[in-house]
Amino acid sequence: MINLLEPFNYIKTMIFDVDGVFTDSRLTVFEDGSMIRVMNVRDGFAVKEAINAGIQVIVITGGSSMGVVKRLKGLGIKDIYWGIQDKIAIYEEVIAKQGLDEASIMYMGDDLPDYQVMRRVGFPVCPSDAATEIIKISQYISPMSGGAGCVRDVIEKTLRVQGAWPIFEE
Amino acid sequence: MINLLEPFNYIKTMIFDVDGVFTDSRLTVFEDGSMIRVMNVRDGFAVKEAINAGIQVIVITGGSSMGVVKRLKGLGIKDIYWGIQDKIAIYEEVIAKQGLDEASIMYMGDDLPDYQVMRRVGFPVCPSDAATEIIKISQYISPMSGGAGCVRDVIEKTLRVQGAWPIFEE
Amino acid sequence: MINLLEPFNYIKTMIFDVDGVFTDSRLTVFEDGSMIRVMNVRDGFAVKEAINAGIQVIVITGGSSMGVVKRLKGLGIKDIYWGIQDKIAIYEEVIAKQGLDEASIMYMGDDLPDYQVMRRVGFPVCPSDAATEIIKISQYISPMSGGAGCVRDVIEKTLRVQGAWPIFEE
Amino acid sequence: MINLLEPFNYIKTMIFDVDGVFTDSRLTVFEDGSMIRVMNVRDGFAVKEAINAGIQVIVITGGSSMGVVKRLKGLGIKDIYWGIQDKIAIYEEVIAKQGLDEASIMYMGDDLPDYQVMRRVGFPVCPSDAATEIIKISQYISPMSGGAGCVRDVIEKTLRVQGAWPIFEE
Repeated sequence: MINLLEPFNYIKTMIFDVDGVFTDSRLTVFEDGSMIRVMNVRDGFAVKEAINAGIQVIVITGGSSMGVVKRLKGLGIKDIYWGIQDKIAIYEEVIAKQGLDEASIMYMGDDLPDYQVMRRVGFPVCPSDAATEIIKISQYISPMSGGAGCVRDVIEKTLRVQGAWPIFEE
Repeated sequence: MINLLEPFNYIKTMIFDVDGVFTDSRLTVFEDGSMIRVMNVRDGFAVKEAINAGIQVIVITGGSSMGVVKRLKGLGIKDIYWGIQDKIAIYEEVIAKQGLDEASIMYMGDDLPDYQVMRRVGFPVCPSDAATEIIKISQYISPMSGGAGCVRDVIEKTLRVQGAWPIFEE
Repeated sequence: MINLLEPFNYIKTMIFDVDGVFTDSRLTVFEDGSMIRVMNVRDGFAVKEAINAGIQVIVITGGSSMGVVKRLKGLGIKDIYWGIQDKIAIYEEVIAKQGLDEASIMYMGDDLPDYQVMRRVGFPVCPSDAATEIIKISQYISPMSGGAGCVRDVIEKTLRVQGAWPIFEE
Repeated sequence: MINLLEPFNYIKTMIFDVDGVFTDSRLTVFEDGSMIRVMNVRDGFAVKEAINAGIQVIVITGGSSMGVVKRLKGLGIKDIYWGIQDKIAIYEEVIAKQGLDEASIMYMGDDLPDYQVMRRVGFPVCPSDAATEIIKISQYISPMSGGAGCVRDVIEKTLRVQGAWPIFEE
């Protein structure tokens, strides 16, 4: 019998895009042109648990919202790369510098700028509302959409499989 | 015949978590890192009715949003414990100090930090979108999700059963 | 054959509640305790058309959000009564002063404070997500919820039946 | 066999309404009466791609939100007409001045003020939640609603058919 949760066993590093993953794709626009984004409380809880469990959590984003970066830092994420136009370049720099095994990396992205990196990692995953091409190359599609708990979903599945989720079913 | 509303008869105290119960799980993040939360008008109306009807309403939350606390106080809730990391400790302190009967307590929570207290009270309940473990140990799961009227739902059911809801069916 | 749209023919006056009708039931709460509400562009378009068509539009609300009142005034509504605790008293004052025929009044409300007035008017209507008691006494339940176009729905139906909606089906 | 994507082949110009197309129909109202609107990150990505691919993108809107205009300019749109009460007049002015072929124009609108222009262009399209009359005269109805990616949908379909979407299926 095939175990669909098998790939979650090997994950040591998780890389997340921000817009459309930690946030939904909506942008609230003020009269002065400034914008705000919507994140999810439950994703935050899960990120803390992942870091506690020894998973390396990395963020690579094309955006440059300082409010979002501030919250991600507050959750304990140290490796945050923002304002990145060429994601594959920074990805190669990070795995080289930190000596990461690509087979043990989960990457969660939602749109075309994530495509190339997702072709490289061992376990590419996406939210339910990702772009068509991203859904096609993902090995796991979360039932949750961006900003609605997709980060919580993949972290919770990983930690459960690896025996590190705080409460277990009896 | 089993009366599914039977447990609502015995409730004298209601304890509520805030994030994911009085609010949905979304966090709107501004450029400066400040955050806003979404609450529900109808929950507010119901809280006032519960207090009028003599139900003791208590709030225990891990969050520390002063805007939310201010609104909850404005609704007439006096026992508000915020910024609480260890909910079971404050719970035990409150029931001891106020001499509460655990069998007559309803607790509404939505995520793992509520787990231990929900194991203790007579009537653990949750919103429709609570975490898996919380749904499993709840004796009543509201059809409403957090921030969408789940508080109104359990208060309205309690006051109807106890004959204290303002308008009755003829 | 019964014509379900028949009652829309007799409407000369429309009275609207605000919270849960022109807005959804969500309250966004800032750190300083100030709150914002969500309204709908399409409701605004319809209100202007109703006033152009000679319908008398009146607003009676328990709330006191100056932002909402400002927008309603901007749409051309002149009779706005806000911060009203006792809706039936102000209702009786208004119909007496203006000599309104109760049989030709549509009232749209969503919650218990609207109950008594809705028992009086000729055509009580409500959004899809109104409280149980309000749904029971409504003669028309809009398929739209509060803040999602329920005002547009009842105005559009009225003006179509009365031949005053800008574009007609051929 | 009929090719439903055939009309997307001929599009050289895209004209968009703003409210209900680039935004959803909700208006968030502050205490001082100022308002904010919700836009979509994915629509922005698509607009940039359309302009890169040589499509002429034009915006005609009755609204006058400077925040929205600022963001649309930031995406690279140069022809933005805002605060327009009479859309057909400005439309005729634009096609005359720029010598546009009406048969190659796609227009996306959602409500009655868009009706007349949509009767003129070669390919009238609308979001899933457009007004009844607009849905009736549209040749393509996006599965996405306003502010939820309907702009992305029609641009992506156009660029795919015309071979200009960045990543292609193998």
